[in-house]
Amino acid sequence: MAVCTVYTVQSLNSTCSISTPNKTHLGFQQKQVVFYTSSKKSNKRGGGGITCAAADSQTIVIGLAADSGCGKSTFMRRLTSVFGGAAEPPKGGNPDSNTLISDTTTVICLDDYHSLDRTGRKEKGVTALDPRANDFDLMYEQVKAIKDGIAVQKPIYNHVSGLLDPPELIKPPKILVIEGLHPMYDKRVRDLLDFSIYLDISNEVKFAWKIQRDMAERGHSLESIKASIEARKPDFDAYIGIILLPHSLTRCIDVRLLFDHNLPVYPQKQYADAVIEVLPTQLIPDDNEGKVLRVKLIMKEGVKFFNPVYLFDEGSTISWIPCGRKLTCSYPGIKFAYGPDAYFSNEVSVLEMDGQFDRLDELIYVESHLSNISTKFYGEVTQQMLKHADFPGSNNGTGLFQTIVGLKIRDLYEQLTASRAAGSLQATKA
Amino acid sequence: MAVCTVYTVQSLNSTCSISTPNKTHLGFQQKQVVFYTSSKKSNKRGGGGITCAAADSQTIVIGLAADSGCGKSTFMRRLTSVFGGAAEPPKGGNPDSNTLISDTTTVICLDDYHSLDRTGRKEKGVTALDPRANDFDLMYEQVKAIKDGIAVQKPIYNHVSGLLDPPELIKPPKILVIEGLHPMYDKRVRDLLDFSIYLDISNEVKFAWKIQRDMAERGHSLESIKASIEARKPDFDAYIGIILLPHSLTRCIDVRLLFDHNLPVYPQKQYADAVIEVLPTQLIPDDNEGKVLRVKLIMKEGVKFFNPVYLFDEGSTISWIPCGRKLTCSYPGIKFAYGPDAYFSNEVSVLEMDGQFDRLDELIYVESHLSNISTKFYGEVTQQMLKHADFPGSNNGTGLFQTIVGLKIRDLYEQLTASRAAGSLQATKA
Repeated sequence: MAVCTVYTVQSLNSTCSISTPNKTHLGFQQKQVVFYTSSKKSNKRGGGGITCAAADSQTIVIGLAADSGCGKSTFMRRLTSVFGGAAEPPKGGNPDSNTLISDTTTVICLDDYHSLDRTGRKEKGVTALDPRANDFDLMYEQVKAIKDGIAVQKPIYNHVSGLLDPPELIKPPKILVIEGLHPMYDKRVRDLLDFSIYLDISNEVKFAWKIQRDMAERGHSLESIKASIEARKPDFDAYIGIILLPHSLTRCIDVRLLFDHNLPVYPQKQYADAVIEVLPTQLIPDDNEGKVLRVKLIMKEGVKFFNPVYLFDEGSTISWIPCGRKLTCSYPGIKFAYGPDAYFSNEVSVLEMDGQFDRLDELIYVESHLSNISTKFYGEVTQQMLKHADFPGSNNGTGLFQTIVGLKIRDLYEQLTASRAAGSLQATKA
Repeated sequence: MAVCTVYTVQSLNSTCSISTPNKTHLGFQQKQVVFYTSSKKSNKRGGGGITCAAADSQTIVIGLAADSGCGKSTFMRRLTSVFGGAAEPPKGGNPDSNTLISDTTTVICLDDYHSLDRTGRKEKGVTALDPRANDFDLMYEQVKAIKDGIAVQKPIYNHVSGLLDPPELIKPPKILVIEGLHPMYDKRVRDLLDFSIYLDISNEVKFAWKIQRDMAERGHSLESIKASIEARKPDFDAYIGIILLPHSLTRCIDVRLLFDHNLPVYPQKQYADAVIEVLPTQLIPDDNEGKVLRVKLIMKEGVKFFNPVYLFDEGSTISWIPCGRKLTCSYPGIKFAYGPDAYFSNEVSVLEMDGQFDRLDELIYVESHLSNISTKFYGEVTQQMLKHADFPGSNNGTGLFQTIVGLKIRDLYEQLTASRAAGSLQATKA
C-alpha cells in the first residue's frame, strides 16, 4: 500500500502500488516478514491503472545461481562495473541488507526469500538449500512486479542474526539480477528471466577452496570442514546442482513427472543460458591445491540476443596453447579449448581455459583471439580485468569468463531494449 | 666439347661448354656412360670466358628426396602445374629418359647418377640406395654447372633395361629439381640446393601401399613383397631415412666424426627444409589399410624466403576439427594440428592433417583457414587440387601439402629472383 516512484529506463515518474502478497508457502510459517498488503491485480500490467511501466522500459531480469562462497558477489561486482558504476548497498537502509544497487543494476539476494529463519530450519531439519525453506510464491510475485515496473517491499534475511528482518523497498531498475541458490528452480520465476547463469564449482575445487579459507580465516579444523561439506552435499545435489535420484525412485517414477510437477529433485543447471564450471587444472598432474583452475564457459545455442563466444572458427573443435613463439608463459602455461557439445540435451558451445595469466600481454593476446565477446573497443576485457585485478579469479578463467559474460549481458540488454523500443514504435504506428 | 645454347631466366643466347667430368667414384667402373670431356675451368662462373649466366639468371635448385614409389613424380607434376606448364620428357630424345621438362622447370632423376648398372650392383652386392652405387662427384659437377648456367650431358639410367644409356643434354632451366634417393646426401650437392624436400612415408603406410600395388598390379604374392621390403630396409634406413648405427658403433665412434666425414650412416631428413611425413590415421582405431592417412608438413624455421604455413595463430599449438556446425564431414572426419616442434635439433613448425576430403566445400573451407600458403588468389590451392583430382593423394594431406609446397617454392623462386635482381642492380650502380 506504500506509494513509490517507479524507476524505469526512461525515468518515468508515475505512481504505482507495491506488490507484496502475503501467502505462505508449503505450510511453513513466515516469521518476521512484514507484508504490505496490496491487490493481486496490481501485479498485472495494464490491469487497473496501478501499473506504470512502458513496454520499452521493462526491467531485464538476470538469474545467477550458485552455492554460497562460489564467487557470486565477485561476479556481480564485475557485471555492474561493465555497466559503468559501482554497486553499493541501499543508502540509509538496513546495514545487513543483501541488496546492491548501481546506476543500472539492482542485485537482490534470493536468501531474502527464506521462509524459515535459522532457528526454523533447525527445528524442521532442513538446510537453506531445501526449497521448503524458501518462499517461491513471494519470489515470483515480487520479481514479476519488478519486471513489470512495480516497486516491491522485499524481505531481508539477515545473514548475521539468521533472522528475517523488516523488508526494504526495491524499485524497478534497468537490470535486476536475482542471485542465490534457486533463481531457476521455480518455473514461474525461471520464465521471468531474460538470461540465466549458473556458477558451477566442482566438488574438488570447492573442497580445496573451503579448506583454504576456513583453515586460514576461521581457524576451523580440517575435520569440521569436511563434516560441514558432507552434511550440505545431499541437499545441494538435489536442489541446486546435480540429479540425485535414489535408485528406487528412478525405477518407479516417470522422470517427466518430476519435471512437470517441479519436484525438488531436478537441478537448475539445465536451464542456464551460460554456465561457468570451475574444475581442477589438467596442466599439473594430480593437482589438488585448487590454485590453478580449468574453467569452462558453457553457452546455450539459440538464445535470442546471445551469440556464444568462439575461438578462431565458429562451430568447429579447437584446442589452443597460445604460449609458444609469440607469447611466452610460465609453468604450467595456458590452454584453451573450444567446440560444440551437448549439455543436459541442450546444444551448447563450450570455451575452456586451463591455467592462469601471469602478465598483461598474455591477457590481451588471448582476448585478441576470441570472437563474439561483445566488447565496444579493442582490449575492453583486459581493461575490465585490470581494473579489478584485486578481485578473486582475475588471473584465470573465472575472472575472464565472468567479465565476458558481463559484456554479453550488456550486449543482450542493449539489443533487448532496442528491440522493445522498435516493437513499441511499430505498435504506435499501427 | 659440345656447343650449346644457355637457357636462362632472361633467355640469354650465349655459348658455353658442357661440363661432364669423367672421374670415377669410389673405385667403381662407370659403364656405358659417354662423357664429353671438357676443361674443369668451365665449371667456374666468371673463370675464363666460357661461363655465361648472369648473376640474376642463376638456376634455382630444389632437392626432393624419397624412396621409389613414394609419390615423387606426382609431386613433380603438382609442382610444375603451379608454374603453369605440363612437364614432359625431352622431345626427340631417349624414350627411356627420366627427365621431365616444363616451361620453367626441369626435373632430373638422380638414378641417372648410378655408377653401377643393375648387373654391376648385383656383382658388388649393393642396392641402388648404397652411395657406392652412385657417382656423387659427377652429380655435384653437373648440378653446379647447371646452377651456374652451363648445360651438361647427363647420363641416363635406363629403368627398363637396368643399363646406363648414352647421356642427354640438360640446359639450365629457371628451376632445376633433382629428385631421387640422395639429393641431400653429399654435402657439396646439398650446398647447391636453394630448397630441399623430403617425402617420408612411414614403414606402416609404405608396406600397406606396396602390398596393395604389387598384389593388384603385379600379381606378386604377399610373401615375396614382404621379403623385398625387408631386403631393402637396412640400406634405406642407413643412407636415406633413419639413423641405423650398430650398437657397437655408437659406443665406439664419436658421432660427430660421422657427420664430418660424411660417412654413409647419417640420414638426409635432417637437412630438408620441408618434410612431408605420411603416417597411418589416428581417426580410425587400429587402422592398417593405409587408405586414410595422417600427413605432417614439417617446415624448418629460419629458411630465407620460406615462411612456414600456419593455422590460426602463428607459433602457438593448435588442434582443429573443422567438421562441426559449419562444415559437415563423413566418417572418420578431418583433424588438423599445428605447432612449433624440434626435428633433428632443428626448430620447425609442423602442420598435420589426418583424414580426407570428401567434397569441394571441405577443401576450400580448410584452405581458407590456413595462412602463409603463398597463393596468388583466394582458393588457388583448391583450384590446383581440383585440376589434378585424378592424381594420387588429391583427397588427403599428401596432395594438399604437395600443392602447398609447390606454391611455397614458386614464392621462394620469385623472392630469390627479385632479390638477386635487386642485388645485381645495386652492384651495377656501385
